[in-house]
This record gives sequence, C-alpha cells and structure tokens, in this order.
Amino acid sequence: MTLSPTARSTLGRKPDRAATDPAELYALLDEGLVCHVGFVRDGAPVVLPTAYGRAGRTLFLHGSTGAGWLRTAELPCSVAVTHLDGIVHARAVMNFSMNYRSAVVHGTAHLVTDPDRKWEGLRAIVEHLTPGAWDHARRPNRRELAATALFALDLTEASVKRRSGPPSDDAPDVAADLAWAGVVPLRTVRDAPQPAPDLPEHHTLPEHLGAAADRPR
Amino acid sequence: MTLSPTARSTLGRKPDRAATDPAELYALLDEGLVCHVGFVRDGAPVVLPTAYGRAGRTLFLHGSTGAGWLRTAELPCSVAVTHLDGIVHARAVMNFSMNYRSAVVHGTAHLVTDPDRKWEGLRAIVEHLTPGAWDHARRPNRRELAATALFALDLTEASVKRRSGPPSDDAPDVAADLAWAGVVPLRTVRDAPQPAPDLPEHHTLPEHLGAAADRPR
Repeated sequence: MTLSPTARSTLGRKPDRAATDPAELYALLDEGLVCHVGFVRDGAPVVLPTAYGRAGRTLFLHGSTGAGWLRTAELPCSVAVTHLDGIVHARAVMNFSMNYRSAVVHGTAHLVTDPDRKWEGLRAIVEHLTPGAWDHARRPNRRELAATALFALDLTEASVKRRSGPPSDDAPDVAADLAWAGVVPLRTVRDAPQPAPDLPEHHTLPEHLGAAADRPR
Repeated sequence: MTLSPTARSTLGRKPDRAATDPAELYALLDEGLVCHVGFVRDGAPVVLPTAYGRAGRTLFLHGSTGAGWLRTAELPCSVAVTHLDGIVHARAVMNFSMNYRSAVVHGTAHLVTDPDRKWEGLRAIVEHLTPGAWDHARRPNRRELAATALFALDLTEASVKRRSGPPSDDAPDVAADLAWAGVVPLRTVRDAPQPAPDLPEHHTLPEHLGAAADRPR
C-alpha cells in the first residue's frame, strides 16, 4: 500500500518532498500532539486545533457533544499534523525555508457509536498524549462517555511531505558569498512535570511520566 | 476594537477561554512560526501548513505562483496558529487536556499586486522567521518577485482561545486521590545554528542569529 492514491492528495509542487510509505505517515502522526482539522461550515472553511489519536490505519478525533463542529454523523475534513525541525537561512531571502515534516489527511470522519470502538478510540487519544496515562488515571464513566463524541477517519488518503538539510541557494549567490547560510534547529521539549496545587504530598512522579519528561518530542 | 465580531468567530464552547484583545492576537501570531490555512477546493476542505507574517492588522501568506491553492485572486480561508504550552494530567482520563494558546482567523485573503505592498508583505514573512534576516540576506530580484504570489488577510475576524493552569478535576476524583495530577510543560527551543556545508569558514554567526538562538520560542 502506498499513500496519495487520489489527485487531491498527490503533490503538485516539489514532488521530491513527498513520501509514500504509510509507516512514515504513522510515525509522523504518533510523534505529534495536536492536529489542525479543516472542515466546511455554512460554505466557508474553518480550521481548529484539536487532540487526536491513532490506532492502526484510523485517526481518532473527539470533543464534547456540545461542540458545534461535532454535531454531525459524517464530517468531510482535512487533518494536518506538522513538525517544525528548523529554520533554513539562505543567501537570498526568497530561498529561506523551513525544515519540517507534515502529514495531510483527506476524508470523511464518521461518528463512532459502537461502545467497544469508542472505548478504543478514546484510549488511543489519551495514550497519544502520554503513554501509560490510560492505565494510571480513572477511566471514563457512563456520563462522560455520553457527553463525548468520537470520530474515526481512515488514513488511506494522505500525503506526507518533508524538507531537511541545508539551504538550496542559487550558484551565483553561493559564489558571491553574500550572507550567512545554514539551519537553526527547532525542537519541542517537555520540562519537569508540575504537580497540581491540590495534589497530596505523598505522590511521587509515576513511572510513565518520568519517562515522558526525558523524552525529546 | 475587539475581536470576534461575527457568529463564526465567537466561541460556542467554553467562552471563558476566549480573548477579545487584538494585542493578544498579534502577540500570539508573532510568536508562532507556521500557520495552518484551510480552504475549500472542489467542494472539499483542505488544510496546509505554511509560513506567514504580520504587519499591523494584516496577515500575509505567500507561495510559488505554481502552487495550486494560490492560483486565484481571492481565497476564502481560515488560518490557525497554535502554541502548545503543556499536557494536563488529570485524575480522570476524560479531564486530560492541553494548555495552549490558539488563534483562528476567518476571512478572504486577497492577492497583492501593488509592488510596494508586495515588498512589505514578503519582508514581513521573512522577518517573522528571523528578525534581521531581511537586511542580512539578498533581497528579492524581479524574477523572484514574479514567481511569488503574496496574499493579504485582514485580521478583524478572529478568535483567540487559551487554557493554562492545573487540571480541572471533579471534586470526588480529587478526594479519592486516584492518580497523579499536574502539568507537563512543553516548550519549543532553537538549538545552535548549523552552518551550511558550503559556507566559507571565515563566517561568524551574524548578530541577529546569535540572539535568536538564545531566545525561547
């Protein structure tokens, strides 16, 4: 299986930056924390940041049943996850760029009503934030499940794009030695966990959080 | 002037997380590096990550004139910029959350054809990536200007939303002392600049980059 089976998920520009391996898509999604979901409301485009999770070739989105954009059974949408890896400084301002990895998924997200599937999806979203959290904290009760809408989006129609490495300058600009050129790397770090003010003092940091704090993401 | 003058930019859910001060919108946009722009293509929503800049109450987007989504004079769109500040661990998995600040802008981006305005917009985008870069590197030539499409989006119709602080757990869960609770802070850092392999050795790091490397963003 390769990605990008349709015209809208096939890159028109710079196809050398495209990836077609689902494993790369999955790794990119698993590394992210927030996605941007785009949909159409009253004929106009809307983009919102939201949490997500993945299980196999399904992306899960969720939210309150009171959220306007989730009051539907089928949501045609586009979901993007982007990692910024660096700012690319070139000799010419028009060759400035970003080093990045991004995934854009197209499709229709479907409301999940099957209880087991809903449980699986919510678990995927929580575990995506911090692996180990689902087994550590209290799981959803009936009231919470009823107040939460879960949507599943198939990951077959997707494009992955990335840029890495030094700037791509024109030869005359390099020869003219006009300016500094290179990359300023970017990285997201998790700092030391801050206990809630009302957390009793006997608590030590649980194992799954100690590991998370050390993990560069 | 306050933000959110229309129904679609007024928050339906958790209005206590909304901000109405343009200064907060501008600061949030200026701190970001990438936005996610949503638009409608052939009736379906599309979300793409892209660079941007701001000057006053205008957001600028740009790209190659060969990029499909920019082959228009008017682009109805939604633009989101999101900062993740932390992962919020609650006693109950359904109270897990993110600390974040996000801006969502709605409107129609217009192709900029006036040469001075185009220059201003491209400068805003480059300076947004790294302040000082526009004066350091070679500026656009006629060919580069012709190959680049610039779009301007008014920032009047926008919503700003944020969450900060400890988890919001239900009182019975706090009393039951079920689990660790608190926040794992997230932060984006710029690491030491990496000179391009073909950069002559006589170059030292320019002043505007030294400052950037120390600046937490």
